[in-house]
Amino acid sequence: MKKVGVLGGGQLGRMMIQSAMNLNIQVKTLDPDPNAPCKATAHEFVVGSLNDYDTVMEFAKDIDVLTIEIENVNTDALFDLEKQGLTVYPKPDHIKMIQDKRVQKQFYIDNDIPTSPFVLIDSIDELNNHKNMLPAVMKVGKGGYDGRGVQVMKTEEDFSKGFEAPSLLEKMVDIDKEIAIIAARNENGEISTFPAVEVVYHESNLVDYLLSPATISDEVEQKAKEIATSLVTKMNFIGLLAIEFFVDKEGNVIVNEIAPRTHNSGHQTIEGNLTSQFDQHIRAILNLPLGDTSRRSASAMVNVLGEKGYTGVAKYEGLNEVLQLSGVYIHLYEKHMTKPERKMGHITIVAPTKEELFEKVDAVKKNFKVIA
Amino acid sequence: MKKVGVLGGGQLGRMMIQSAMNLNIQVKTLDPDPNAPCKATAHEFVVGSLNDYDTVMEFAKDIDVLTIEIENVNTDALFDLEKQGLTVYPKPDHIKMIQDKRVQKQFYIDNDIPTSPFVLIDSIDELNNHKNMLPAVMKVGKGGYDGRGVQVMKTEEDFSKGFEAPSLLEKMVDIDKEIAIIAARNENGEISTFPAVEVVYHESNLVDYLLSPATISDEVEQKAKEIATSLVTKMNFIGLLAIEFFVDKEGNVIVNEIAPRTHNSGHQTIEGNLTSQFDQHIRAILNLPLGDTSRRSASAMVNVLGEKGYTGVAKYEGLNEVLQLSGVYIHLYEKHMTKPERKMGHITIVAPTKEELFEKVDAVKKNFKVIA
Repeated sequence: MKKVGVLGGGQLGRMMIQSAMNLNIQVKTLDPDPNAPCKATAHEFVVGSLNDYDTVMEFAKDIDVLTIEIENVNTDALFDLEKQGLTVYPKPDHIKMIQDKRVQKQFYIDNDIPTSPFVLIDSIDELNNHKNMLPAVMKVGKGGYDGRGVQVMKTEEDFSKGFEAPSLLEKMVDIDKEIAIIAARNENGEISTFPAVEVVYHESNLVDYLLSPATISDEVEQKAKEIATSLVTKMNFIGLLAIEFFVDKEGNVIVNEIAPRTHNSGHQTIEGNLTSQFDQHIRAILNLPLGDTSRRSASAMVNVLGEKGYTGVAKYEGLNEVLQLSGVYIHLYEKHMTKPERKMGHITIVAPTKEELFEKVDAVKKNFKVIA
Repeated sequence: MKKVGVLGGGQLGRMMIQSAMNLNIQVKTLDPDPNAPCKATAHEFVVGSLNDYDTVMEFAKDIDVLTIEIENVNTDALFDLEKQGLTVYPKPDHIKMIQDKRVQKQFYIDNDIPTSPFVLIDSIDELNNHKNMLPAVMKVGKGGYDGRGVQVMKTEEDFSKGFEAPSLLEKMVDIDKEIAIIAARNENGEISTFPAVEVVYHESNLVDYLLSPATISDEVEQKAKEIATSLVTKMNFIGLLAIEFFVDKEGNVIVNEIAPRTHNSGHQTIEGNLTSQFDQHIRAILNLPLGDTSRRSASAMVNVLGEKGYTGVAKYEGLNEVLQLSGVYIHLYEKHMTKPERKMGHITIVAPTKEELFEKVDAVKKNFKVIA
């Protein structure tokens, strides 16, 4: 029975456990939060810093394969563990590259992966030299997460909101659609991509829901899949790579960001596709044959976020209303405390038609709330 | 967050945990085997006897609802816990009734539930008075399990193979089909039945695989569903009731046996139906709305049994071959040791057509083996 070590014990690790159980794979988890979502259901749950060299080295002593569910981890330890002969997937150099958006971006340029024009910036002062990039998005190279470290700059007035840190200034893309594709590659070099999902935004500019199939042409889907395949091939990547794309009004497909792991945009594969992203991750890192990613039906995924105005022990409103809906799957992450916008779970909807899907998405969004 | 206590920590409990996680339900498990399948993934895993009054009483001290995944438990404790106000589903009187096949059978007679003719027998000597029942099946009232305590009697010569214990002698049914239906009922009185699955036997008389939809007429399926609904209604049952039926050559549907819990005949609902039996069990015992049981596609389920001739630490042969098949789901139960015929896991196959299903069932059965 293989023992997989996972750096990070959040919801991605938790859903990985649910998958790993089916193949008798033991999951050992490291997380700094003693109440992380993996706490109760991991085979072993270790509390400790993901960024501390010694902690990561000690954690990995008795495992067969090391993987991650968050990329902000101590890569020095990963490099040393790899040197000692431990299987580490994704590979430490990929994690390190993806930790720094500036290096990531340079990789796209060097390898003919389409991406938006950018310049490297080290301080706010330098912004004045790049007025021609406006409107633009400034992103810190390292440490940004879930919207932090990202600043939209429409005019020069916005320059003052910039960061005093090594950053990117990216020309804003005239976005028609945002889509995401999850690619997998194993040691044997087998590659598989999931069908594209579409990120549907609400007026408020927050992600409203994810939709599969995406409402894009076959050519756009094909282009995105080719880029995804080219990316994992050129990187010699092993594991799961989630790729977020912008599609512009001319149908050009460009890479926005990548994550070397299971991803929020793949949650609906649990019920929506023949193989889930969590199953696929396990298969990829253990060099097992990759699964068929075909859709079983149309699906949508709604994030369950802490309601604004509530902080405290989480309560779930509308559970019964949602459980009454056919083809609707609640996934809660066992987070004790809620706060505004905290990801507390997700809900997947499957339906034979998009019309039925949209009706149920509305019903879910109207009824289900996390309060305190 | 509700805490559900489960008596029994085998594979049924293990799959219940995978479901319960999605609703933030904590599962506390009691099992006499320190290495039972629920050991690592239950929120709390307690080692102790399911038949010991004090152990069960102590186990149930800090839980919100008590349920079972095996019916051979101490019902005295369950009755006392119920008196103390704990929610116990299925109810202790139903568990007690089902523990004794003689009482079970009497219930069918008293409530107009069709079942095969039978007599009560207390010793082998009495068999001579019931030659008119031949061919027949003798079953001990209590304690029989997985084929133990059951003896087919074709002629008087077989009488000597009988049991010196309170038993049933049932007239053999001229079976055309064996089917099973899982019914659920919650406190609100809501009732739901899963579509019938067919038990397909191999020449060797061992269950070969389970098939959904069953190859029966709509009338037969309807009759079976009505009996299932009538049974849970008349029993005032709460929880999940698995009902195994015989269908005879004339299309008569009669109840063979029942189990007050999730059941081997419901495993394929995880991928084959919109709601799984494990989700439904959780919903029923917590008085949540019952889920839609409709099929998502045709499905089959093959038990993964320890290969004959092998006893020891389990090894799985053919894993890669099976993982290459689309729509095929391996579920292993984390049992360390294998022995001949031990249930080590199951494999579900979903497919758009029965032809494709049969091809994959054959491939699975040919390739996948548990050896030591």
